[in-house]
Amino acid sequence: MLWLEGRLRTGTTAPFDLSDRGLSLGDAVFDTALALDGRVVFEGAHVERLVAAAGTLGFAVEPDAVRQAMRALAATGPRLAIRTTATRGTGPRGLKAPAAPRPVLYATAAPSAASLAFAPLRLWPTDIARNETSPAARLKTPAYLDAVLAAGEAAARGFDEALFRNTRGQVACAGTGNLFAVFSDRLVTPPPADGVLAGIVRAEILALAAGEGFLPEERSLTLPDFLGADAVFLTNSLRLLAPVEAVGATAFASAAHPGVGQLAQALRGRVG
Amino acid sequence: MLWLEGRLRTGTTAPFDLSDRGLSLGDAVFDTALALDGRVVFEGAHVERLVAAAGTLGFAVEPDAVRQAMRALAATGPRLAIRTTATRGTGPRGLKAPAAPRPVLYATAAPSAASLAFAPLRLWPTDIARNETSPAARLKTPAYLDAVLAAGEAAARGFDEALFRNTRGQVACAGTGNLFAVFSDRLVTPPPADGVLAGIVRAEILALAAGEGFLPEERSLTLPDFLGADAVFLTNSLRLLAPVEAVGATAFASAAHPGVGQLAQALRGRVG
Repeated sequence: MLWLEGRLRTGTTAPFDLSDRGLSLGDAVFDTALALDGRVVFEGAHVERLVAAAGTLGFAVEPDAVRQAMRALAATGPRLAIRTTATRGTGPRGLKAPAAPRPVLYATAAPSAASLAFAPLRLWPTDIARNETSPAARLKTPAYLDAVLAAGEAAARGFDEALFRNTRGQVACAGTGNLFAVFSDRLVTPPPADGVLAGIVRAEILALAAGEGFLPEERSLTLPDFLGADAVFLTNSLRLLAPVEAVGATAFASAAHPGVGQLAQALRGRVG
Repeated sequence: MLWLEGRLRTGTTAPFDLSDRGLSLGDAVFDTALALDGRVVFEGAHVERLVAAAGTLGFAVEPDAVRQAMRALAATGPRLAIRTTATRGTGPRGLKAPAAPRPVLYATAAPSAASLAFAPLRLWPTDIARNETSPAARLKTPAYLDAVLAAGEAAARGFDEALFRNTRGQVACAGTGNLFAVFSDRLVTPPPADGVLAGIVRAEILALAAGEGFLPEERSLTLPDFLGADAVFLTNSLRLLAPVEAVGATAFASAAHPGVGQLAQALRGRVG
């Protein structure tokens, strides 16, 4: 199912300008949201982040149009992953952005298995670095090829996802999610400056932490720091909170950690 | 003008699957070639590199189809920039590449001004690092957002192009081209391991160097090393050989350097 220019379409094929800068240069931002029974979970935060991300790149996206796209697709199934993309639109050849861009907004929906949410997973630390010097490292842009390649490495070794360190060797994030580490009563997640997207569920967890007896903290972590945690988990909009069972050869009993269980329960309450 | 699935079309709009992984994940490779009077300059090298790049990502592109696309477009004008893109095609949601990908091949052509070729330019050293740990740093993939942002920085400061260093601080390349530095009779260019695309014109220059009295060398260079060169130039398929007049505050008389002039002359002979 596809939403394009105010209209829902069956399938995902539509007339498209192949000189669009989103396709040719990755000059675009996107968002992935979960929709449950016609409702977009954390809708306000998703709309706001996509609009802000486009603003960071220097083009305008109407929040009303984003909301309309998400809601139109949310109504088409009981449990959906909605991906909303805003590109800078077409432009003349070359890198230079057009002075008056005409952005293109579209969104697609696909079923999202309930079994994915809160399911534990295993992370493989890839040697491909997350480039924290790039403004794009803090945005969801189409530049996911490193994540695709690292996910392939991880799968080949029997892991579910890749763990990225940045170019300074600090833990940044997973291929498709933010990371948290529990050290006693401290709940630590790397700061955006380490090459990290400000995830919607990440923000929810940081806001819920104090209520569940944690001191939340944004702090840089080396991989050895991270491997020394009592428990580790990943957050994103579809997996919500995924306890990490292993990072490479290091095993974690994250799913059995009472504090992680409490956070998951609190998040369930927020997701509705 | 667009070539898609064996057919030339006016304009650049065509039915396209918006769940294509090239658009959603940057899971694609491309090539830019110059076409003069119906002939694709360095055609064999361009076709071979695009096919090899797709192979690196794990999908197959038929060299005959690439050649057909380039030639069909080359016939539509006297001096054209031909961009040929191969995406991994569509796939289910998520990063995992489909086991049996159905790649999509398309190409576009746009006029390329003769005045661009061999014209001098000025480079701005950006603080966005080229990520040499990423296999994509050695391929032309749609992940050009850093180059777009850095080109914007450069333009705002009165420069033509950005110069990228890698995460180790070594000179890598410009936003859209390879870099060469002349030190007496040595002609030095950074190796691919420094996060550099193996450019077609770069290879031509390395092959021509000895005939013009240079010792060609692939070697890592810090920015201070690079700024100490006698002359500096950029190569790509449209600019061909662009003498660099400035890198930030450091001026170069690269266009007046006799060795650079000889290389440009030799390259003109190869371009035809």
